[in-house]
Amino acid sequence: MGKFKTPRGTRDFLPGDMIKREWIFSVFRRVFEKYGFDPLETPAFEDWKLLSAKGGGGDEIKDEIYYFRDKSKRELGLRFDLTVPLARVLASNPQIPKPFKRYQIGRVWRYDRPQAGRFREFWQADPDIVGSSGMECEVEILALSVECLKELGFRDFVIRINNRKILSGIVEALGIKNRGEVFRVLDKFEKLERKEFEKELKAVAGNKAARLLKALETGPGNLKNKLIGEGMKEIKEIIIKGNAYSVSRYMKADYSLIRGLDYYTGPIFEVFIKGFENLGSVAGGGRYDNLIELFGGGKTPAVGISFGIERIFSIMKDKKMFKLSETNTRVFVVPVNEKLRKQGLKVVQELRKAGIPAQTDLMGRNIRKQLDYVNSMKIPYVIFLGPREAKSGNLTLRDMKTGKESSLKISGIIKRLK
Amino acid sequence: MGKFKTPRGTRDFLPGDMIKREWIFSVFRRVFEKYGFDPLETPAFEDWKLLSAKGGGGDEIKDEIYYFRDKSKRELGLRFDLTVPLARVLASNPQIPKPFKRYQIGRVWRYDRPQAGRFREFWQADPDIVGSSGMECEVEILALSVECLKELGFRDFVIRINNRKILSGIVEALGIKNRGEVFRVLDKFEKLERKEFEKELKAVAGNKAARLLKALETGPGNLKNKLIGEGMKEIKEIIIKGNAYSVSRYMKADYSLIRGLDYYTGPIFEVFIKGFENLGSVAGGGRYDNLIELFGGGKTPAVGISFGIERIFSIMKDKKMFKLSETNTRVFVVPVNEKLRKQGLKVVQELRKAGIPAQTDLMGRNIRKQLDYVNSMKIPYVIFLGPREAKSGNLTLRDMKTGKESSLKISGIIKRLK
Repeated sequence: MGKFKTPRGTRDFLPGDMIKREWIFSVFRRVFEKYGFDPLETPAFEDWKLLSAKGGGGDEIKDEIYYFRDKSKRELGLRFDLTVPLARVLASNPQIPKPFKRYQIGRVWRYDRPQAGRFREFWQADPDIVGSSGMECEVEILALSVECLKELGFRDFVIRINNRKILSGIVEALGIKNRGEVFRVLDKFEKLERKEFEKELKAVAGNKAARLLKALETGPGNLKNKLIGEGMKEIKEIIIKGNAYSVSRYMKADYSLIRGLDYYTGPIFEVFIKGFENLGSVAGGGRYDNLIELFGGGKTPAVGISFGIERIFSIMKDKKMFKLSETNTRVFVVPVNEKLRKQGLKVVQELRKAGIPAQTDLMGRNIRKQLDYVNSMKIPYVIFLGPREAKSGNLTLRDMKTGKESSLKISGIIKRLK
Repeated sequence: MGKFKTPRGTRDFLPGDMIKREWIFSVFRRVFEKYGFDPLETPAFEDWKLLSAKGGGGDEIKDEIYYFRDKSKRELGLRFDLTVPLARVLASNPQIPKPFKRYQIGRVWRYDRPQAGRFREFWQADPDIVGSSGMECEVEILALSVECLKELGFRDFVIRINNRKILSGIVEALGIKNRGEVFRVLDKFEKLERKEFEKELKAVAGNKAARLLKALETGPGNLKNKLIGEGMKEIKEIIIKGNAYSVSRYMKADYSLIRGLDYYTGPIFEVFIKGFENLGSVAGGGRYDNLIELFGGGKTPAVGISFGIERIFSIMKDKKMFKLSETNTRVFVVPVNEKLRKQGLKVVQELRKAGIPAQTDLMGRNIRKQLDYVNSMKIPYVIFLGPREAKSGNLTLRDMKTGKESSLKISGIIKRLK
């Protein structure tokens, strides 16, 4: 039954699933473009030094990158997100007008331990705004995210918002020095059991763990400094300006939110579908004002979000939100005898010309076997072409779901199927 | 100017190019689906043993595969085409109904010496029909190819057809034993200078080189055996049946055509754009009836073609065939003072709601700078929103190409821009 499997953590997508995934992609593309985002594409692999740069993905991601050398011994790695490549493009192309509103939909790779809903090859859909430090950008990114989710059919979701400035401010106010280490543990807040989390936090934050935890759960409270002040102000601004798009009601400040990657500098956000919080966020992002400079570009602020296609797809399947066929083919033409095959082909070509996905037999099969194929493929309509039909021009259209048959000219069939 | 470059042989595609590429993809997708092909997706990397299997890609491609090991020391490689992964899917999924008509559009990688028009990361668009050995399949694949090229805007192209059976038959009739070696040289027929080619051919075919060369150039002629007979008959059948789709006139038998990969077993074809023959074929494919069995599946005939996106894209650019903007954004809304920004956002949202890609300022810029941005982005329309416009509801729409302005309600603007 096949000598070869897909590599661990990767999958094939057969047509039934691919049609659904393509539909998700098309929704993202349409909404992104409506908001004035244009497409960008970057290579699947990048210079290893770019991917592993300190302040980029960060130390933890480094171990998850698929690393390899090409035949000239260049050190390369498969991209682990779409943000680092974007920052590289901006660093190398200062001529690009700002703001640069780009989207990119594509696969990324992380050598993660495979587990339910997590894969080593997965798809992301990212809109980003580069060149502006105004919170208008965060608001637009979040408004667009809400519209994407609504267009996909989601109604009940929440955008949790925090700010790296607040997190840094709290850590600073508490006099914690090992910020990187502490952030790495904080990122496990949702993933670990409470007991386990407290233990790990204590290990890195010592006797400050309890106060830190309280600040995460209830906000900075009495802790005050410049960073905290700025961070709080920005969150407020996002929520207020969100009103212009009627999306503030989806937003909720969450001071425990941290985001794994090192490059964030300001507001950060994650989107959760209600009832599926345990799967993790379906989208996450934030502001990364230093990344482009880190890669050799000018000082260039940027903000974006990344939608995780796998989780969205699996929740939508779970909730039976797809109203799509298993095949794109709308109709199968059955000539009832050998002589009529050529004319069957003509009918098929007329349907295709009208933009209707159509097929006819390519296997030399008899009628019964052709209908078996139609049923196994779940093709919704069949056209029968017999000698009488060939003469009169009236074809028999059968709705395979109801079994109902209609006698129609080809033009009538085209109208019906469009 | 950026510390990092794209790895050698790979490129970024900025929006101006990506919009054109996306359009090419959308044409392929639409035509493939009209012909009853459904999408499939497979991982970017595969088991090294699959990619390097004898009788698969073949010995020559082996040296061009990006090879790496994951952290569990699994041997992997980046896919070098979309046919081998398809055959693996079929070998592992015998439940898939036949014929299986699938398309796949995606990137593949070959560690080739980079040269004009050749890249190490490139995109292919492949429709394949699996499960039928009838020449109807070749004909449909070629009819669909013609339609794709026409929809892209090409008028003048030729499909060269040969048959691996004829090539094998000729080699057999001439008593040549080192078939693999000879085929590898034959594949360079178009690429090498005549002198150089003859020299290389002589090196592998000895004193039979001259007769072999003649058979390639003028057909098998007096050379006769079962393979040659079958191969000639199949070519004839394809050309005759092509009439039903009115595509025979694009077809031309070419006995020197060989195709690089090892897995072909029957008819093979390559498509050339007239005037751009020196760039090589823009599409190539053929029948590979043994590949799925080689990977552990049942005996399953298959045929397909692969379009090379890079060459199509570069020829279309060269011939100025694209009628597309540099940005998807249709209109930019300019509020003439700070107080009107909120209302500007409302106008933008109404346009987006109507499906019109629209933007407004996110940078706190003055009017002049906003118009500079519009010009640098080549956005075709601007809407001015001043205090008078805000009151009356009549907005000023400026066509940036002609400079002409019209005073319209938002509904009128939507009608105009749709």
